[in-house]
Amino acid sequence: MARSPRRAGAPRLQLPLLCLLLQGATAILFAVFVRYNHETDAALWHWGNHSNSDNEFYFRYPSFQDVHVMVFVGFGFLMAFLQRYGFGSVGFTFLLAAFALQWSTLIQGFFHSLHGGYIHVSVNSMINADFCAGAVLISFGAILGKTGPAQLLLMTLLEVVLFGINEFVLLNLLRVKDAGGSMTIHTFGAYFGLVLSRVLYRPQLEKSKHRQGSVYHSDLFAMIGTIFLWIFWPSFNSAPTTLGDGQHRTALNTYYSLSASTLGTFAMSALVGERGRLDMVHIQNAALAGGVVVGTAGEMMLTPFGALTAGFLAGTVSTLGYKFFTPILEAKFKVQDTCGVHNLHGIPGVLGALLGVLVVGLATHEAYGEGSPAEAALPGFPGRLPVL
Amino acid sequence: MARSPRRAGAPRLQLPLLCLLLQGATAILFAVFVRYNHETDAALWHWGNHSNSDNEFYFRYPSFQDVHVMVFVGFGFLMAFLQRYGFGSVGFTFLLAAFALQWSTLIQGFFHSLHGGYIHVSVNSMINADFCAGAVLISFGAILGKTGPAQLLLMTLLEVVLFGINEFVLLNLLRVKDAGGSMTIHTFGAYFGLVLSRVLYRPQLEKSKHRQGSVYHSDLFAMIGTIFLWIFWPSFNSAPTTLGDGQHRTALNTYYSLSASTLGTFAMSALVGERGRLDMVHIQNAALAGGVVVGTAGEMMLTPFGALTAGFLAGTVSTLGYKFFTPILEAKFKVQDTCGVHNLHGIPGVLGALLGVLVVGLATHEAYGEGSPAEAALPGFPGRLPVL
Amino acid sequence: MARSPRRAGAPRLQLPLLCLLLQGATAILFAVFVRYNHETDAALWHWGNHSNSDNEFYFRYPSFQDVHVMVFVGFGFLMAFLQRYGFGSVGFTFLLAAFALQWSTLIQGFFHSLHGGYIHVSVNSMINADFCAGAVLISFGAILGKTGPAQLLLMTLLEVVLFGINEFVLLNLLRVKDAGGSMTIHTFGAYFGLVLSRVLYRPQLEKSKHRQGSVYHSDLFAMIGTIFLWIFWPSFNSAPTTLGDGQHRTALNTYYSLSASTLGTFAMSALVGERGRLDMVHIQNAALAGGVVVGTAGEMMLTPFGALTAGFLAGTVSTLGYKFFTPILEAKFKVQDTCGVHNLHGIPGVLGALLGVLVVGLATHEAYGEGSPAEAALPGFPGRLPVL
Repeated sequence: MARSPRRAGAPRLQLPLLCLLLQGATAILFAVFVRYNHETDAALWHWGNHSNSDNEFYFRYPSFQDVHVMVFVGFGFLMAFLQRYGFGSVGFTFLLAAFALQWSTLIQGFFHSLHGGYIHVSVNSMINADFCAGAVLISFGAILGKTGPAQLLLMTLLEVVLFGINEFVLLNLLRVKDAGGSMTIHTFGAYFGLVLSRVLYRPQLEKSKHRQGSVYHSDLFAMIGTIFLWIFWPSFNSAPTTLGDGQHRTALNTYYSLSASTLGTFAMSALVGERGRLDMVHIQNAALAGGVVVGTAGEMMLTPFGALTAGFLAGTVSTLGYKFFTPILEAKFKVQDTCGVHNLHGIPGVLGALLGVLVVGLATHEAYGEGSPAEAALPGFPGRLPVL
Repeated sequence: MARSPRRAGAPRLQLPLLCLLLQGATAILFAVFVRYNHETDAALWHWGNHSNSDNEFYFRYPSFQDVHVMVFVGFGFLMAFLQRYGFGSVGFTFLLAAFALQWSTLIQGFFHSLHGGYIHVSVNSMINADFCAGAVLISFGAILGKTGPAQLLLMTLLEVVLFGINEFVLLNLLRVKDAGGSMTIHTFGAYFGLVLSRVLYRPQLEKSKHRQGSVYHSDLFAMIGTIFLWIFWPSFNSAPTTLGDGQHRTALNTYYSLSASTLGTFAMSALVGERGRLDMVHIQNAALAGGVVVGTAGEMMLTPFGALTAGFLAGTVSTLGYKFFTPILEAKFKVQDTCGVHNLHGIPGVLGALLGVLVVGLATHEAYGEGSPAEAALPGFPGRLPVL
Repeated sequence: MARSPRRAGAPRLQLPLLCLLLQGATAILFAVFVRYNHETDAALWHWGNHSNSDNEFYFRYPSFQDVHVMVFVGFGFLMAFLQRYGFGSVGFTFLLAAFALQWSTLIQGFFHSLHGGYIHVSVNSMINADFCAGAVLISFGAILGKTGPAQLLLMTLLEVVLFGINEFVLLNLLRVKDAGGSMTIHTFGAYFGLVLSRVLYRPQLEKSKHRQGSVYHSDLFAMIGTIFLWIFWPSFNSAPTTLGDGQHRTALNTYYSLSASTLGTFAMSALVGERGRLDMVHIQNAALAGGVVVGTAGEMMLTPFGALTAGFLAGTVSTLGYKFFTPILEAKFKVQDTCGVHNLHGIPGVLGALLGVLVVGLATHEAYGEGSPAEAALPGFPGRLPVL
């Protein structure tokens, strides 16, 4: 943090005033619009004669905590592989995510759950707000090292609004199902970041410069990020799905997909590496593509075999992307994708959307046990939570 | 550990004998007094014709595990920022907490749940014992680097007893509600440690000495501690609250409070830093004050807006405390608060207690749906678990 | 990884082809044999008119996630103490575990749950597959630094099959109870690894060579592994036990056992260390022996006192093993146990099996509330899940 480059003339009041302004505005909007929902309100819950074990908290909170670890530990430390920006990546992750989740509670609330003039919050709001924070951090990965905290806060302010609009269009207007956010989180976050990266293109910024010095421990820190993301991805995809078989199946599919993408990544990395050497950047990133690729289809009747196949392809394609596509992206398109989010979130997110279409197309009465295939696979499965 | 300074004449049998003595005494007391409660005992549970899903284990164990991560990973690595004591801080955290949780099971049991001459243990005992271990580690933070493991074990022996007495006076005699332990854990732990720090004052111990050498990776390790504490704090405050809406609301309030304290901390840190630079010590610590400040009021009808406001104030005050009050504490009061626990736990703990009083004072019939305001807000909410 | 020694003539296609072959074979077997069980299948679950809260997912998934953290974070980082192999240990852990859990799903499925020609998977398969991956990583610890990823994958291929056979013989033929895997996981994994280590014996490999350079941060990374293993061990032992009192009691026993093994380890380490110094290797490893030793007896009516005593003995014996037995193992038996798995998993695993026999022998009608002592303590407690 103290190491982050600050221009000599940078106005020292910029960051403090921006934080105060954003926090003040958010607090006022919370005061006017945000209320406890019936499961978090003492009076409403007790009046309802509910059994405590019915409270959705107990079905979703453990998954929420796993998502929370992914957003704050996973993304933060994954980006710590850049020696010079290790602390900045963790620290700014912290700041951006903390603001994004407040702001997103409001934006998602306005779009999805403005009942009687109020936004009603619960564990579901926390999950959805964390998801939006995840998309912001994906974008951050594309421009890491290129701008300061104040600019990043402004990016967050804008991105959360666009995230809400995109999500509203996809889930509410097009009635798409996308529980794990292949489209709404990964594809959106990646391409938003890449566009920003193009805008912030600086020809003199050489990637090798970032990595000078001993990267050994930086790589171990990055592996902390990778592994926590890998471990908890089944919770990420299953957190907002239907209770019961929906969450259960999504977790299982994601687990299998990730294990196959890991083998695919090791295979491809050794194949394309110099003298058969594994590349740490591939391991740290592409092994996670299996989680992204089943973000849409994970809650469907994908079958364990389908999950393995999808994961393996995602890991393979993602690794090849790091090797062959990232250099093209910089050389031809002037996009410096610092963390390679195009390979980890962009391509696998698009593949995930296509996989969702494929699984819906192949759906049968028998597989889902009721209604027409499309009905069963799409609106029959509530997919992404009614963001309330 | 091997690096911790040991005086030439330190008796090498001191630590082994003390460990053996304390473990032996604890084991004997366990044999005499500690028994499984009806939810952990094979015979009692089966006789009762209970449904497995009624077992409190399933409502509290996920929260307990989060608390457990905070105590052992969070506090341990948070203190690793001191380059020279990195390993000692993690290692001694481990030793102290392991003893504290056994000893506290006995002390809290004697004070709160001696039924028929026996202490009956369950997941609630684990949560409460971990809370007490947390208070011990807060105190440890105030004297980190000033004394060896044997002295720290003796401190633990004493502090756990005083913790139990303080908790008994507050919760049972004064009938205060303090689920997340603003008073019983944070305020108590901080001031106990500060008193010890005064006693152990060594004028030649200069803080700068501790931080020589490359602190870069030490700061990343400390951020592991910070972030795990930050992530799981909603579970810390909600672990012992009433089931259903109580846990749900507490988690939500803590989540909002922490996000606001993070923005407050970044704002203040940049404002008071040299040339607008962020200070890593502030980020690592003050961002957590939002969790402390809603320890008492978090389970009440604080409202999301109230949580944001409280968190923002706590982050702000805590950061200012690091900047302006810590130097005074050392210069005027001869208290060397190594980790700044006064700013992270002391002041926010006191603020949290005052916030609790305020929220109780403002409580209305309507907000809680039953009884008089004070009744509803205080004894109507069981608050801290009947420590059983 | 890039640092792992590769012989000049190592065929660069070896690892890619092996990964592709293993992943391809596994995927085909999944396509033929693996199906969702009734709790993860949309049609079967909805036809059954189940209540969502009955889905076993909600009783086991939080424990599964804790086990998952132990396998991927715990074992991986615990082995990072070897400076030269830090990244290799974390990276190869990732590869081996990802393959082991797929392969084990098939092997355990064939042995335990081939119903109507299909293996039916659910959260229980994930827990059991992770347990098997844990055994593979224990073996990896005994040969760390001696062989490359392709050889390690072949080891995994073989070990998972032998693990399945051993588990089938113990649990199904001998009808042994071993929820936390003192025998099936720890003892098996340790001795399998030690046999391999003997086979791979290289006289010129000197342990001191591994540890040159600054080991300071490597030790902190290893402590991340240690502490996550320590924290989540109650979930490891309780994940597959009976719902209700069984899981509750197992978690409690493991918690007490670990706290006592920590004190035992610190006591012995200081006693046998040079000039009373604590040895970091002891703290990183032997403190965990308390989890291993109650792997079998943890779900029985061991009593809290019994758990403390067992843990203390395990920590003590394990520490003495590191000090006195590991050198003998290398000098006399030509077994280079890189991570000392004999002390952490081997001896405590054997002690755990003996403890199980002892607790069963001492069981009374009253303690379990039904049937004869042996019946109550053994088949009355389903112990390890019917692996389905």
